[in-house]
Amino acid sequence: MSTNRQFKLKQRPVGMVKREDFEFAKADVPEPGDGEFLVRIAYLSLDPAMRGWMNEGKSYVPPVGLGEVMRAGAVGEIVKSNHPKFAVGEHVVGMFGVQDYAVSNGKGVTRVDPKLAPLPVYLGTLGMPGMTAYFGLLEIGKAKAGDTVVVSGAAGAVGQVVGQIAKIKGCRVVGIAGGADKCRYVVDELGFDACIDYKNEDVKKGLKQHCPQGVNVYFDNVGGEILDIVLTQLAMHARIVICGAISQYNNTTPVKGPSNYMSLLVNRATMAGMVVFDWADRYGEAAREMGGWLQSGKLKTREDVVEGLETFPETLLKLFKGENTGKLVLKV
Amino acid sequence: MSTNRQFKLKQRPVGMVKREDFEFAKADVPEPGDGEFLVRIAYLSLDPAMRGWMNEGKSYVPPVGLGEVMRAGAVGEIVKSNHPKFAVGEHVVGMFGVQDYAVSNGKGVTRVDPKLAPLPVYLGTLGMPGMTAYFGLLEIGKAKAGDTVVVSGAAGAVGQVVGQIAKIKGCRVVGIAGGADKCRYVVDELGFDACIDYKNEDVKKGLKQHCPQGVNVYFDNVGGEILDIVLTQLAMHARIVICGAISQYNNTTPVKGPSNYMSLLVNRATMAGMVVFDWADRYGEAAREMGGWLQSGKLKTREDVVEGLETFPETLLKLFKGENTGKLVLKV
Repeated sequence: MSTNRQFKLKQRPVGMVKREDFEFAKADVPEPGDGEFLVRIAYLSLDPAMRGWMNEGKSYVPPVGLGEVMRAGAVGEIVKSNHPKFAVGEHVVGMFGVQDYAVSNGKGVTRVDPKLAPLPVYLGTLGMPGMTAYFGLLEIGKAKAGDTVVVSGAAGAVGQVVGQIAKIKGCRVVGIAGGADKCRYVVDELGFDACIDYKNEDVKKGLKQHCPQGVNVYFDNVGGEILDIVLTQLAMHARIVICGAISQYNNTTPVKGPSNYMSLLVNRATMAGMVVFDWADRYGEAAREMGGWLQSGKLKTREDVVEGLETFPETLLKLFKGENTGKLVLKV
Repeated sequence: MSTNRQFKLKQRPVGMVKREDFEFAKADVPEPGDGEFLVRIAYLSLDPAMRGWMNEGKSYVPPVGLGEVMRAGAVGEIVKSNHPKFAVGEHVVGMFGVQDYAVSNGKGVTRVDPKLAPLPVYLGTLGMPGMTAYFGLLEIGKAKAGDTVVVSGAAGAVGQVVGQIAKIKGCRVVGIAGGADKCRYVVDELGFDACIDYKNEDVKKGLKQHCPQGVNVYFDNVGGEILDIVLTQLAMHARIVICGAISQYNNTTPVKGPSNYMSLLVNRATMAGMVVFDWADRYGEAAREMGGWLQSGKLKTREDVVEGLETFPETLLKLFKGENTGKLVLKV
């Protein structure tokens, strides 16, 4: 415990993220001041949204500044504390950044219990991705029993939870994922009704087959061509939840807008964006309900754990290449 | 009263509508059967939506069949009747088609009073365009006092009403229209707060200037580039009403999807389609309220009346060239 390895943003990536976009630095482990504590990070959350945080310009959060430690959610253990409410030995989740150690004043930090669930689950199903799935599907998508719900990125951190909550709520669930393994995972292990392998199947044909009454709720994690195809298969009064657009994040050309958006008119449908932070005051409620489902086995969760902080840039790329199944986590 | 001139759809237009897409036929004036009446059409409604009705494929109404009289809303006088509820001399509005005379069984037909408003107004502000404006702005756009409302096609049949209702409801209203004359019309005569002339001004700069707090409601009649620009200027929780996309109706290339749709996520905004027919059971309520505003001078209306049934194909083109100010009507 003497050096703190850190990935700092060196330049704004153009297209796909590269190792050269970061500086891999070594600093001293910082000392917590009054009202602060020191966290030894155990696992880092790798999320598609991180790509957007590296870009300049207005978004739902400010961009990461050049020279700053790359922003990331993480879970770890408190190893020193001058904070009255956080004690050494406690485990906490927060935006601690891509590094070994972080100092925090406790703002935006949540205490978690490693006896209730393994630490990586607090970055996935019981963390931001799970919250995103829960509020996006139920509050924005207004999914209800009998609906046909389609989710893209179905085997990803958010998608796997969306589909399972939809099943719990009595929906028919069709996933869209890349590759036969991911499709098998969501159907055989998670209980989705069907999954379309967009790398090897005709997505439109698959939707027609598996959603004969049309799509009531589409939870979109990918954007691009798949969003455009789903638009052609909407049921009346369909709801589209815009959660992400991973297919477009590394574009060097303009984002592909949905050409078929006039289907919103034909079908009196709605497309709405969401940012999970808006639901922060209800995270507890969702975590309790999802924790119950996890305990009872109604909700399953998978994390894709890669070891080694030093692999950060390459491991992050797994997301954009679609190589992860379940929540991608970096073990520090 | 011996011949019935009719425009029949001869072929499905490719790109801009042409006279050759229609057959200009002469038929005998039909005789109404039992429970039917004969209408002598006085004015035809020319609407952007007619372009879509000429295309093959699923939409919110079936396409016009080849060889069928072109579908159009119209207002006229009953000249023969075998219908117990409609009498000779009454004036009625309905989907009577592009012709001199139509037989109807009364389904979807509304009686109107030429003493309360000139007949063309029943095709515009007190007709479908007015209903579209009313329900689109208030029910889908949920415009409320203090909102900044932007409407494209501002000097058109729908846009002129949207902006005025928004003013009545206490909103700040910014129009987007093509040409200085139209902009002057909506600002000086209708009381919009501002209007951006997209043919001669930078729309983004105009929006920044006139909507310093961002756009709360965007009522979109045009689609294409303008929709994409407005997306960059949304306020948080903005509502976009997708009413039409006139800029795209004559495309021979795919529709331009809104590249900036991820602004829906950043701003937790919603884009929703509407079709006015869904509100049919509340037309009466809207007509009474708008009739009151017309009488009191709060709501003004302009119709662009062109004479001569025989000019139908060329007159329809005025819509797509943006040559009409106010509701475009063909006097038969």
